[in-house]
Amino acid sequence: MNPSLRADAEQIVRTAIAAVRPDAAVRLALQQMTFPGRVRLVAAGKAAWQMAKVASDCLGSRIESGIVITKYGHVMGPIPACTCCEAGHPVPDENGFRATQAALDLVSGLTERDTVLLLLSGGGSALFEKPLIPGAELQDVTAQLLACGADIVEINTIRKRLSAVKGGRFALACAPAQVQTVVLSDVLGDPLDMIASGPAFPDSATAADARRIAAKYGLRLSALADRLLGVETPKTLERVTTQITGSVRALCAAAATACRDLGYEPILLTDRLCCEAKEAGRFLASVLRTHAGEGRSLAFLAGGETVVRLTGHGLGGRNQELALAAAEGIAGLTGAAVFSVGSDGTDGPTDAAGGFADGFTRDALRAAGLEIPDVLRANDSYHALERVGGLIRTGPTGTNVNDVAVALLRAE
Amino acid sequence: MNPSLRADAEQIVRTAIAAVRPDAAVRLALQQMTFPGRVRLVAAGKAAWQMAKVASDCLGSRIESGIVITKYGHVMGPIPACTCCEAGHPVPDENGFRATQAALDLVSGLTERDTVLLLLSGGGSALFEKPLIPGAELQDVTAQLLACGADIVEINTIRKRLSAVKGGRFALACAPAQVQTVVLSDVLGDPLDMIASGPAFPDSATAADARRIAAKYGLRLSALADRLLGVETPKTLERVTTQITGSVRALCAAAATACRDLGYEPILLTDRLCCEAKEAGRFLASVLRTHAGEGRSLAFLAGGETVVRLTGHGLGGRNQELALAAAEGIAGLTGAAVFSVGSDGTDGPTDAAGGFADGFTRDALRAAGLEIPDVLRANDSYHALERVGGLIRTGPTGTNVNDVAVALLRAE
Repeated sequence: MNPSLRADAEQIVRTAIAAVRPDAAVRLALQQMTFPGRVRLVAAGKAAWQMAKVASDCLGSRIESGIVITKYGHVMGPIPACTCCEAGHPVPDENGFRATQAALDLVSGLTERDTVLLLLSGGGSALFEKPLIPGAELQDVTAQLLACGADIVEINTIRKRLSAVKGGRFALACAPAQVQTVVLSDVLGDPLDMIASGPAFPDSATAADARRIAAKYGLRLSALADRLLGVETPKTLERVTTQITGSVRALCAAAATACRDLGYEPILLTDRLCCEAKEAGRFLASVLRTHAGEGRSLAFLAGGETVVRLTGHGLGGRNQELALAAAEGIAGLTGAAVFSVGSDGTDGPTDAAGGFADGFTRDALRAAGLEIPDVLRANDSYHALERVGGLIRTGPTGTNVNDVAVALLRAE
Repeated sequence: MNPSLRADAEQIVRTAIAAVRPDAAVRLALQQMTFPGRVRLVAAGKAAWQMAKVASDCLGSRIESGIVITKYGHVMGPIPACTCCEAGHPVPDENGFRATQAALDLVSGLTERDTVLLLLSGGGSALFEKPLIPGAELQDVTAQLLACGADIVEINTIRKRLSAVKGGRFALACAPAQVQTVVLSDVLGDPLDMIASGPAFPDSATAADARRIAAKYGLRLSALADRLLGVETPKTLERVTTQITGSVRALCAAAATACRDLGYEPILLTDRLCCEAKEAGRFLASVLRTHAGEGRSLAFLAGGETVVRLTGHGLGGRNQELALAAAEGIAGLTGAAVFSVGSDGTDGPTDAAGGFADGFTRDALRAAGLEIPDVLRANDSYHALERVGGLIRTGPTGTNVNDVAVALLRAE
């Protein structure tokens, strides 16, 4: 093993994951914002309490009042000037509706000098909701859509029109105040109007789309619901800014910065990776083999989430399999390494966050009597990498924004 | 379909393949060389006649004399000042041995001001050979190595030591003249000492390696052959230059230039691609999706040779499958396209050279009742792409330097 590359990998992993922990991510986003007048805070989602806590720590008494809406059992203590509410998730309930109405009340009557700081995280769709139809009917419509196999885009297109806050309507309610949104994202590719159903983002779907979906699945709707499907959602929103933080994109960006600090030139290939794990490893290995000998120290980054094709009964995970597959292609390149980790610190059903392989890994495995193609067929990357010191362990990280794979090349 | 991207793809394919046709490739290489004194030409391999013909056209009477050694039936006419010989391939024969001896005679007694222009192409290992043991014994040793499953590296390590020209020995015979070698390569990664067994390239294997291989397979050798295995091959060679032309690297370089001429910023990812075709397509699609919207026109290039995993009985090829698989990931990106072609103009058992897909392809296939995952499972990329105008046809190209895949992104 090349101990210097291994040390670089550990540092890049630590730095990248630290940057997407909820606390760090929100702090990073807030540092890039300015709040000229009064601030009212609205936080919704599974990480709402943590996000609001950081905002309170950063902004202190500048937060005049706020409301925090999270899942039952997720409020960890009081936050100055804020009301903390718990509500139903994944099925919305009356507590959520009441809390959301309180948020609408909180942002009404503001002036142009005021700011609404909106903090959104996963689960926000269910937790931040004020239906324009009775709650029971909303549950029925959602159940109908799920039962007939509608996809998440279709479900959200319908639900936005039945809501007082979704599809950009919450931002409308804040006018004329400025709305500054921080989104803690774990959705690949960050579609802004999908995260928490976009309370402060223009809706890309139209009333015609909604009617088409209702017809496609033969939805049973009340006259009120039927009429609401025809009411257009905002297509543009003024005085609204959005910062996405803690996403796989941020994970890649932090990894890239860590690479640069270590003297590598970082090249982001993708933050949408979604192919087979071991083929991604082979691809990255072929990239390193091509650029080896150019005299440049390079770091190619690929974030996303690969899949494993099961052909055996071994132990491993997609990140370990990616690294192991790459080991074959970089064998003999003394300055090359490929590693990959899951940002939650857990790769497959193992205690490792991911795997590391360098130009010596293949021969080290051979010396241990292991051939990479056999190990991959058995899906036993964990035991193979364990034998050659190729496991990366971080412990649970408290965040989950997919994986990042890095292919390092050190000029020699 | 985006007709502008489609036209760009056609132009990139045409330009890239034209650059690696033997004629163009050799002309390109010769233009970068200077020949101060007399030139003696030695050409060996399946494309020896074509390469020598171009050299004769370019250098005319500056070629004082030459010898061309190619496969039976491959001499297409006389070349001024050159003797054209035909010989056995893949099994070397006495005609080849005699012609190679003539080449050794041709380059003996030269001065420092003279140049030997050595033109090598595929098949040169068999065609350019003068064994140091009887021909029958050489055939027997080769047969033993093949029968016991020795790989090509092992076979060449043995054969270089039993030859008067391989492993850098031909270049030694040319001294003190300068040796300028042009290699028309179809070997991934261009290992110079492998192509035609490297008559003008230092040998990376040692006598110890040769003895180890002989012992591993229990080779039956004469006393002479056994002694020759212990004679070291040159580890350094002076006054020898080598230009590789017409390789997959040149294919990628020409494609990159064509991309730049069309206004794309070319980024070479790899010229060693060797993963599964459809996973490479998915990887490239994820790269495009990541960089879409950055306002840059980019072209990501990946050369090499992918493999297809057969799960159905349809019609297609690795290049068509790569493009089709990418179609899913770039669906909806109006400025994105992925295409891939085999430089020989033949992709799998089809009349197409490869496939093209853009942001409209997935929906066009759906409109034709085809879902990409189903088509891929059936390995029926040909018929699917045919339905949506996604086949790239070039006809036979007369060259074969693997494939190139290009992922285009046009800023909009």
